[in-house]
Amino acid sequence: MTTVGVLGATGAVGQRFVQLLDGHPEFEVSVLTASPQSAGDSYSEAAKWRLDTPIPDGIAETTVRETDPDEIPGDTDLLFSALPSTVAEQVEPELCEAGFVVSSNASNERVADDVPLVIPEVNADHLGLIDVQQDERGWDGALVKNPNCSTITMVPTLAAIDSFGLERVHVSTLQAVSGAGYSGVTSMEILDNVVPHIGGEATKMETESRKLLGEFTGAGVEWHDATVSASCNRVPTLDGHLENVFAETDADPAPGEVADAFRAADPIDLPSAPTPLIEVFEEPDRPQPRLDRMVGDGMAVAAGGVESTETGVQYNCLAHNTVRGAAGASILNGELLASEGWL
Amino acid sequence: MTTVGVLGATGAVGQRFVQLLDGHPEFEVSVLTASPQSAGDSYSEAAKWRLDTPIPDGIAETTVRETDPDEIPGDTDLLFSALPSTVAEQVEPELCEAGFVVSSNASNERVADDVPLVIPEVNADHLGLIDVQQDERGWDGALVKNPNCSTITMVPTLAAIDSFGLERVHVSTLQAVSGAGYSGVTSMEILDNVVPHIGGEATKMETESRKLLGEFTGAGVEWHDATVSASCNRVPTLDGHLENVFAETDADPAPGEVADAFRAADPIDLPSAPTPLIEVFEEPDRPQPRLDRMVGDGMAVAAGGVESTETGVQYNCLAHNTVRGAAGASILNGELLASEGWL
Amino acid sequence: MTTVGVLGATGAVGQRFVQLLDGHPEFEVSVLTASPQSAGDSYSEAAKWRLDTPIPDGIAETTVRETDPDEIPGDTDLLFSALPSTVAEQVEPELCEAGFVVSSNASNERVADDVPLVIPEVNADHLGLIDVQQDERGWDGALVKNPNCSTITMVPTLAAIDSFGLERVHVSTLQAVSGAGYSGVTSMEILDNVVPHIGGEATKMETESRKLLGEFTGAGVEWHDATVSASCNRVPTLDGHLENVFAETDADPAPGEVADAFRAADPIDLPSAPTPLIEVFEEPDRPQPRLDRMVGDGMAVAAGGVESTETGVQYNCLAHNTVRGAAGASILNGELLASEGWL
Amino acid sequence: MTTVGVLGATGAVGQRFVQLLDGHPEFEVSVLTASPQSAGDSYSEAAKWRLDTPIPDGIAETTVRETDPDEIPGDTDLLFSALPSTVAEQVEPELCEAGFVVSSNASNERVADDVPLVIPEVNADHLGLIDVQQDERGWDGALVKNPNCSTITMVPTLAAIDSFGLERVHVSTLQAVSGAGYSGVTSMEILDNVVPHIGGEATKMETESRKLLGEFTGAGVEWHDATVSASCNRVPTLDGHLENVFAETDADPAPGEVADAFRAADPIDLPSAPTPLIEVFEEPDRPQPRLDRMVGDGMAVAAGGVESTETGVQYNCLAHNTVRGAAGASILNGELLASEGWL
Repeated sequence: MTTVGVLGATGAVGQRFVQLLDGHPEFEVSVLTASPQSAGDSYSEAAKWRLDTPIPDGIAETTVRETDPDEIPGDTDLLFSALPSTVAEQVEPELCEAGFVVSSNASNERVADDVPLVIPEVNADHLGLIDVQQDERGWDGALVKNPNCSTITMVPTLAAIDSFGLERVHVSTLQAVSGAGYSGVTSMEILDNVVPHIGGEATKMETESRKLLGEFTGAGVEWHDATVSASCNRVPTLDGHLENVFAETDADPAPGEVADAFRAADPIDLPSAPTPLIEVFEEPDRPQPRLDRMVGDGMAVAAGGVESTETGVQYNCLAHNTVRGAAGASILNGELLASEGWL
Repeated sequence: MTTVGVLGATGAVGQRFVQLLDGHPEFEVSVLTASPQSAGDSYSEAAKWRLDTPIPDGIAETTVRETDPDEIPGDTDLLFSALPSTVAEQVEPELCEAGFVVSSNASNERVADDVPLVIPEVNADHLGLIDVQQDERGWDGALVKNPNCSTITMVPTLAAIDSFGLERVHVSTLQAVSGAGYSGVTSMEILDNVVPHIGGEATKMETESRKLLGEFTGAGVEWHDATVSASCNRVPTLDGHLENVFAETDADPAPGEVADAFRAADPIDLPSAPTPLIEVFEEPDRPQPRLDRMVGDGMAVAAGGVESTETGVQYNCLAHNTVRGAAGASILNGELLASEGWL
Repeated sequence: MTTVGVLGATGAVGQRFVQLLDGHPEFEVSVLTASPQSAGDSYSEAAKWRLDTPIPDGIAETTVRETDPDEIPGDTDLLFSALPSTVAEQVEPELCEAGFVVSSNASNERVADDVPLVIPEVNADHLGLIDVQQDERGWDGALVKNPNCSTITMVPTLAAIDSFGLERVHVSTLQAVSGAGYSGVTSMEILDNVVPHIGGEATKMETESRKLLGEFTGAGVEWHDATVSASCNRVPTLDGHLENVFAETDADPAPGEVADAFRAADPIDLPSAPTPLIEVFEEPDRPQPRLDRMVGDGMAVAAGGVESTETGVQYNCLAHNTVRGAAGASILNGELLASEGWL
Repeated sequence: MTTVGVLGATGAVGQRFVQLLDGHPEFEVSVLTASPQSAGDSYSEAAKWRLDTPIPDGIAETTVRETDPDEIPGDTDLLFSALPSTVAEQVEPELCEAGFVVSSNASNERVADDVPLVIPEVNADHLGLIDVQQDERGWDGALVKNPNCSTITMVPTLAAIDSFGLERVHVSTLQAVSGAGYSGVTSMEILDNVVPHIGGEATKMETESRKLLGEFTGAGVEWHDATVSASCNRVPTLDGHLENVFAETDADPAPGEVADAFRAADPIDLPSAPTPLIEVFEEPDRPQPRLDRMVGDGMAVAAGGVESTETGVQYNCLAHNTVRGAAGASILNGELLASEGWL
């Protein structure tokens, strides 16, 4: 078994890591970290567990450590990071310097030149950037990032239709409250309401998408030159980001061709990877967050409502934002790192 | 005073007509119609009143009539129609033939060649189509339509920026449940959910917008040649349609120029018309449905979040879907008909 | 295997029967009925499937029959009824007369003198009423009812504390919208709202509870003489009825004794029965509908918040209203009928 | 005009004070205080205004002061307190010592022996305790409290039926999220959910109710000896606490007598007081929070669903928790203090 740690294990995303890693065929959780106040407590004391499955048995009694390189046993093979980006900024480089491999969900450094930003089914080859990174930073360890939850929902579908000549994307998101963390959205803000702005989110979608769809040249990533304009909305759903995509393309594909391209998207052979990657719905009113967020155990992307427009195609896509869009994405990257021999 | 009737007065939109006409400076409700089962009942018996203001005093005891030309006193100056389109299709032409002027919210015939589809602040001159209509159909009366609630939210903003050379519109809507009528959306459908499809809605936005923005030539309307692609979503809000608009334009206006164009949109001098027509918010997270749907007493359009894109501009707009988007729109058209001497 | 049919299989409760019977160790679904309009269609056509698991494989293609004794193969061992009570009233007696055993969720006849109203863990011996029923009605078949969803949530807890001398119950319910069927509660009624009345519900709780807690004498059931007063509210939750119970008792049990009595409630050995029957939460803010409705796979009762009052005890209880409270309850009664040799 | 100040003016309740005092016929806001961080800012900068009416004109530019006796002009006639109870505990006595009259919504000291806890329509005579208070504490000023929002919803109805011999009350509350302040309830907690516990709330209802219904003897208040047991639930509504009351009484009033007693409850002649005090609904499914929270401009209590029980009566009541239940309650107490000559 590969021994893994979860950094920032007591928050909303951290809890999801712990839940998804329970019973994992290759990874065994041996380290849980949190802020200094929680260090020394058992995990069940430190985390106010709020998921609808119980805390995994072995984990409840595990003692929580401080998020500090000195506190983490040197033989831990892989660290998953659910740290807030302000903490990650400082700690993740220290960990990589100390030789750890970190698969991180934190938003900082995602578009840095020498940091692989990876969705295994889309751009597994970008892992090659690790060589560049270790060279430039003098690290023994490595830092790999997964994209933002709203980006990850859309990019597999864009990759699937890139062969039609993707030129421009306009996308509106309808994002669930869990994306902001347990206390990120108050009930007074969102009941009988929608908030048409999520700080920094549009920029993440606009930049991360182009990097993910770009070409790895050996020395770096050449970003895709399609432009992306995003409008991000918070809606009163619990889980599952739904997105309306308008893609302008060079070719003029029929809706059926687009749906076929979605269905043909290559799955990858990793323990947490879904098959198919993209599940296509024929009913015009699907996918819907509550009904469809768990397709592929929360790791697939659901798509539907494909129609032609004057300049390309429009469709809807959906993914579970805290599974495929956060903890599950980092775990999948961890599985890719293991399978490609980086651990 | 102008005597008016409300056709289909007991439903959700019908009740809103009755509420908004209470205390109107020019219009006095003298006729209320409903389906044959309710004919003969008092309005308070026939309508299960669900608005959060009480039934207007004089109206509660008014006897409801059948929606039939023979039942409506010939001296009623103006009829507002909140009829379902399947009923409107049959009854509205009969009424116009019998000499009545009908300001209708029903969706049928909105894009017919000889039917004026009007937003007073945008295309008041399209009323000139009435002459064509009376000629072609041999009517003494007239039929005027207001657009769909989702169309009416966006078109005033598009009209305001048309001078920048509007070429293409991609729009995503986040529409309130009241848009589907009192029983149109079940709670099982929409709690913790979003439905990414509203039957026929996208087509309405795509066609009505182009007609509204078109030129009246004297003989007909030449539609605007901008293309519109819409993606329509139902969200768990009660009232207020929010829309994310991506407008591709020939010119390359700065966000500030766009906001100024919104602020400069001409209001009209009619009793129910708001000033300003478009209220611009500076905070990036506004307008929001619950906080801002009542701007201009529910008759204004709220706009915000203006930003440049590669090919134009993106912004959000919002209007109250059962006030500006339905009953209030028909009443405003009625006021225009009165002021232009068509009654 | 025991062959079973589901009457009214296309509605919300009917779909839940089909879902819960999928993979059942003893029961095999061979008959699905619906209204005449659906007869002849495949189940997947007739039911607009809305659960978040897919339609079971074998079932999707099953042809739906009319709910009519002549249409049901005579060798069907057991019929589950998800019929509306107005239909059940007419059809269920015809089926019993024709020799079928019917385990029914329909509300009619629940308090009839010769109809067993049963929660297997509480009053399995009431099945003895079948002898009385067959005698009086001249039936070869039998009709057994499960209680209403709000009753079934509370009665296992009342049975557990009856030894303290139960004298009077005041109960307030916070009931999920699914209890009214898929279209029973509109979104306009319940968003940002609560409806403090559910037609007939309080009376069901007040009468059914006393019959369930009563003594079977061989000839009939002597109702428990505790009085029950209920106040029933619809709240914006999807599934799971939460109830605040104030029980006045002769003895003066400490909260710990009450919790122990809940924990000690006897489970029953049937395939769908949960162990424990009542899951007790120590945290004062639990159970909560969204977090706890699936305890015991939706078949257990969750309880918590136990405190003493001047005259007894107060506590909260919760059960999944369409699993333990409807389809699951009928299935459990079917399992009891099978195990006691009534099929 | 009477000059007034609002302590803690930037929070949710503070904003409601500012909104309700705008245009008040007797009170003029001259002082606004907040925490030291906000001192020196204009009110519009310090308060993130979230109500759906605009900030009152004169107020937006008012400079916020620190909540400190030295910062408040000595000629301010009356101070309203929206302070958190931990702050109030320290500051309110200092202010009273300095000679100010404070009408406070903070929960501390509500059941202290020498602090009047007042609902003007119910127990205006308890103001007499001020003499006792000034004697005992050596204050020139005075401290008057209004009850908790959930208490204030119920007590006017209990007072109205006390003549039937009130002996015992069981009450379940369905409380809106605004009762916990703007950030008190996260969306993750309450969407598709109910939380059956609000810390300290049940105790407040159980004690405050008995003090409010008690007798002022000249030297103190003899609490009513009816017992109250409360079960408090947070539900996904924005404003308006709904309560199911089961009142056991000595007499056996018919539902009509109870409704008549509600209707006969004496209003009081103060600027913000509603007439009638209790609005009785005949429809069994009313009052509902969204439809009825604004009865009497948010200052009345709505009641309905009256029915007999074995030992008394059950009914529902509702009030707006941040108007009648908080800021409006303090203002009404301020009006009573003015009218009785205490300022």
